[in-house]
Amino acid sequence: MKNDSFETIGKVLNDAKSILVFTHQNADGDAVGATAALTRVLRQRGKDCYILFDDDEIAENLRFMDRGYSSDDEEIIRDPDVTICIDAAELKRFPKRKEKFLQGKVKICIDHHMVDETICDYNHIDSGAAAAGELIYKLFQAMEAEIDKETAEALFAAITTDTGNFQYSNTTKESHMIVTDLYDLNMDAAAVSRNIYESVRPEKMRLQSMVKDQLELFADGQLAVAIVRQDQLKACNAVMSDSEGIVGDLRSIKGVEIAVLIKEDSDNKCFVSFRSKTEADVAEIAAQFDGGGHKRAAGCTIYSGAEDVYQMVKQAVLDYLKA
Amino acid sequence: MKNDSFETIGKVLNDAKSILVFTHQNADGDAVGATAALTRVLRQRGKDCYILFDDDEIAENLRFMDRGYSSDDEEIIRDPDVTICIDAAELKRFPKRKEKFLQGKVKICIDHHMVDETICDYNHIDSGAAAAGELIYKLFQAMEAEIDKETAEALFAAITTDTGNFQYSNTTKESHMIVTDLYDLNMDAAAVSRNIYESVRPEKMRLQSMVKDQLELFADGQLAVAIVRQDQLKACNAVMSDSEGIVGDLRSIKGVEIAVLIKEDSDNKCFVSFRSKTEADVAEIAAQFDGGGHKRAAGCTIYSGAEDVYQMVKQAVLDYLKA
Repeated sequence: MKNDSFETIGKVLNDAKSILVFTHQNADGDAVGATAALTRVLRQRGKDCYILFDDDEIAENLRFMDRGYSSDDEEIIRDPDVTICIDAAELKRFPKRKEKFLQGKVKICIDHHMVDETICDYNHIDSGAAAAGELIYKLFQAMEAEIDKETAEALFAAITTDTGNFQYSNTTKESHMIVTDLYDLNMDAAAVSRNIYESVRPEKMRLQSMVKDQLELFADGQLAVAIVRQDQLKACNAVMSDSEGIVGDLRSIKGVEIAVLIKEDSDNKCFVSFRSKTEADVAEIAAQFDGGGHKRAAGCTIYSGAEDVYQMVKQAVLDYLKA
Repeated sequence: MKNDSFETIGKVLNDAKSILVFTHQNADGDAVGATAALTRVLRQRGKDCYILFDDDEIAENLRFMDRGYSSDDEEIIRDPDVTICIDAAELKRFPKRKEKFLQGKVKICIDHHMVDETICDYNHIDSGAAAAGELIYKLFQAMEAEIDKETAEALFAAITTDTGNFQYSNTTKESHMIVTDLYDLNMDAAAVSRNIYESVRPEKMRLQSMVKDQLELFADGQLAVAIVRQDQLKACNAVMSDSEGIVGDLRSIKGVEIAVLIKEDSDNKCFVSFRSKTEADVAEIAAQFDGGGHKRAAGCTIYSGAEDVYQMVKQAVLDYLKA
């Protein structure tokens, strides 16, 4: 697939009057930050522009970026000149909104996840970018857009979350270079970080502490396993999404190569998340249970009770580590 | 106090044959990274150079930076031409080694913590720098030093830890600019981060989970309090330093303005750590118990049992929040 230049895409956006912006479901910091920045700039250019998130609600700690940009009403723009999907190149990544997306007279895709093809008229997909926010920044440069404090802060939010605060291996020199530019635009990076990271729900902290308190180590500490049980959710007044991040914490234990988190959905259904630290290919293990993913992060759904799942998955990982 | 230029300090170092490097006790990522980078570069210039840490042991997750640079033996260099203290401008910050430091024929100080005066012959103190590692990088530039991969990685470790992964308000445009330079020097930033952050002792994770599982909220969630008890340390096979980071996690809870962690040292002695999120001045509260610190981070020692300390401190914070 050939990439269109940001100059070309910028011109298409400039020529449009009405634009709807889309992103993947379970919108993360990059999805919200990149779409908020784009919508802000397009509105400042006089466009009729809204984000249609695929989620009923976006995460509480990201909402500060949505300054009235999103709508629940697909008819807020009836026949959009342009629909553009950011950080999501495939319709299946925004299932709820895909019909509306297809109504765009012109369709654009900007993403940093490689795909073989998209159904869009214009595409810019760059898997070397650490965040979609980096690509939106480059689009703004090509458009000679003015980036104000709020736009800069949304882009910083996008980049800092998708790079794991500049710690993941996707982080590049360019990630930091863009951030130096954003500092010139008067952003308050520390305030963004406080908004994103210092608004943890107490229920979430209690759940995570309770689950991690019962972690187990096997194979000389190479395997860490924990279970999130329904009765724990109830005890903490938490929801399953509050368990996000636990599996990464398990992996951060010294000596752990594979971390597993079993999420009890019901008496006969569990979701399982796998992470590896360096060499292990957890997609291979997840595939044994009809799951999928990448070498370092994979998952599967198993239709059994938590205890059975625990035994099965533990054995599969131990067999993998032995091989 | 007037700063000497890095050109001047670089010349003094170049003219020396033997150099001993010092830093503050409880050496953190900045202390270890900055001293390791400096020692590496000075050895590459043919100097006889060692770090004398003030600690018996440096933290396990930072040891990867010490490639044979440190010594326990103060006599490893008997009459050093130069002694240099990094990230520590006052003798009280390295009490165990201060006599040895004073033996330097020439004494140098490079720090980013403001002090009124030092006892050194040459000083460069810049409180605008986010990390001592940033100042060492500038020293290298002034010295026209070659920075290899290992040196670059030690400087990145210094900067990323002292900026809270580029999230704290001390982070500047320059922090990111230096990191872009370090990327050109072939560093593997993700490997550094894995070393620092993905080697948590399981005992530490268990202790932190156990303590946070019992956190309490008061004043409509503005105050979060937790206690680390001696029996919890025993149950987890952990040590008190494993509680590092808990108070910051308590502060990260949505709505919390002041976080307090009470560390039970014995039946009649507790250490108390305070953190504030935005406006509260916790140094003022700590001062009521003869403690000290800054607006956002303070501490005190109280000679009472954990339950008494808990009641006293809780009441003091509630009174402060009411006022």
